[in-house]
Amino acid sequence: MSLESELIAWLKGNLPQAHQFEVGLGDDAAVLELDGRAVVTTDMLTDGVDFLLEEVEPQLIGHKALGVNLSDLAAMAAEPIAAFVSLALPRAGTENLSPLELAIELYQGMLPLAELHGVTIAGGDTNTWDGSLAISITAIGETTSRGPLRRSGARAGDKVLVTGHLGGSILGRHLQVEPRIREALQLHEQYKLHAGIDISDGLALDASRLATASDCGIVLEMESIPISGAAYDLSNTTGKTPLEHALGDGEDFELLLAVPPEEAKNLIAAQPIDVSITCIGEFIDSSGLWKEEIDGSLSPLTPTGYQHEADR
Amino acid sequence: MSLESELIAWLKGNLPQAHQFEVGLGDDAAVLELDGRAVVTTDMLTDGVDFLLEEVEPQLIGHKALGVNLSDLAAMAAEPIAAFVSLALPRAGTENLSPLELAIELYQGMLPLAELHGVTIAGGDTNTWDGSLAISITAIGETTSRGPLRRSGARAGDKVLVTGHLGGSILGRHLQVEPRIREALQLHEQYKLHAGIDISDGLALDASRLATASDCGIVLEMESIPISGAAYDLSNTTGKTPLEHALGDGEDFELLLAVPPEEAKNLIAAQPIDVSITCIGEFIDSSGLWKEEIDGSLSPLTPTGYQHEADR
Repeated sequence: MSLESELIAWLKGNLPQAHQFEVGLGDDAAVLELDGRAVVTTDMLTDGVDFLLEEVEPQLIGHKALGVNLSDLAAMAAEPIAAFVSLALPRAGTENLSPLELAIELYQGMLPLAELHGVTIAGGDTNTWDGSLAISITAIGETTSRGPLRRSGARAGDKVLVTGHLGGSILGRHLQVEPRIREALQLHEQYKLHAGIDISDGLALDASRLATASDCGIVLEMESIPISGAAYDLSNTTGKTPLEHALGDGEDFELLLAVPPEEAKNLIAAQPIDVSITCIGEFIDSSGLWKEEIDGSLSPLTPTGYQHEADR
Repeated sequence: MSLESELIAWLKGNLPQAHQFEVGLGDDAAVLELDGRAVVTTDMLTDGVDFLLEEVEPQLIGHKALGVNLSDLAAMAAEPIAAFVSLALPRAGTENLSPLELAIELYQGMLPLAELHGVTIAGGDTNTWDGSLAISITAIGETTSRGPLRRSGARAGDKVLVTGHLGGSILGRHLQVEPRIREALQLHEQYKLHAGIDISDGLALDASRLATASDCGIVLEMESIPISGAAYDLSNTTGKTPLEHALGDGEDFELLLAVPPEEAKNLIAAQPIDVSITCIGEFIDSSGLWKEEIDGSLSPLTPTGYQHEADR
């Protein structure tokens, strides 16, 4: 039996069936019945850039590959439906795993996350080659009755809210992605959100993207930014401050939201989701990214952040 | 400006806008308004397996990468809507092209095909790495009012119809994929088709898949199989017969259809599409793949065909 048929056989025994799929693995394409509009995102992870296959458990790599895609659906406040997984596997496998075993490990990392968020792995493509491991996932969700949460809806006066704590993800959280799907859906349902993005490339850079897409500027209050323990740990060895890590490190996968002021006040008071949510600034009329120090002074903030390898 | 932003800027200037996309390139995900059910397929192409970057024009590679995905939509008789393109680009580019130039060449190969079939490139992910070129595309279509054309609907007595001529695609047609989108839509609209598949891995293997998915057997009439000129050319150097090439070569990307006998007769007489359509056999009750010689004798046919690299 071929590697792809063996993997499909394994998947059929290990995947929960979702009613949405009339035609699943084994036809030319999958057919999805969607209630809302389709929300589609795709992210490719490659060895040496997004993970080191030699150093990391393949299950963590699989988890991350699905997690970053789900995080993009969370940023749109879309309900996840399906994921499509394409693998380019090194022909020789790894030191300990054949290509098939490697593929199964990757899927075993995806499945718990898929189940947690009601995602069906509905198709994919499995290849071996002389190259290194590359994983491309396309995730499909559907909009809720409130529609998609865009980057472009922020208005001057809106508050900047962020979930969780930021910085230092390289110490582990960049692999252990927890996509804020349920949080995004709950907030989008209960509150009036104007715009949103997930922090994948660093708070400063993604804040600046959110502002630009909304034709606004944005002011971040330095003393309000929730800094993760990992950012403190990391600052011991990097010579950067914990705040610099919180502003510039990538792969936090937290939500950054634009919320009208009254609504933001209620939301912050209620703390309605399992993870903390903090107000860290405000959108303003004049463009650009600004930092506000504790004394109230404003100065330009450089939108540094994780630039993808492709960007350099 | 980063490679990804430069590429997005280039794309925004070169992509036709489709009204389906409320949110296109530049948000966390694309939002699609679909009338029918969503039909989703994904295929990844890698250097050394599906093409040789050193020997082939990148535009042809881009064309092929989109073409094979559209061929899967054709096999489902789905109307193409959008494609999502993930690239892993060699950091050093090629001998003549920077990574950005290589990416643009790939897209320039995709765009005419996308335009021809009304496909919007609605998103993607662009990376560079130390590895070789890998391209993963996810294509999304929608079902027509007749629903999707599955692999599983063939019944004993149905005729086996095939478009075009088969074999020898390695001489060039495997790159110059012409996905049979319009043909599939027209046939599905005008005739009662029971099942369909695109011939990507060879007539014998894909015929056997169609029969298995439909719980049937299938008899192919050897003397009726339309053999391409390329199969004849190739047989001069390979020692195989042209018929062996037509049966076993992969990447023809023609349609193989199950059609009730009366309907098949009308369809063959009408020749309603731009490419020839030929009756090459029949579905039968007993399982398996069989060949019928010109004298009417039946014998088992081995479902040889192109096994993906991953399969060996």
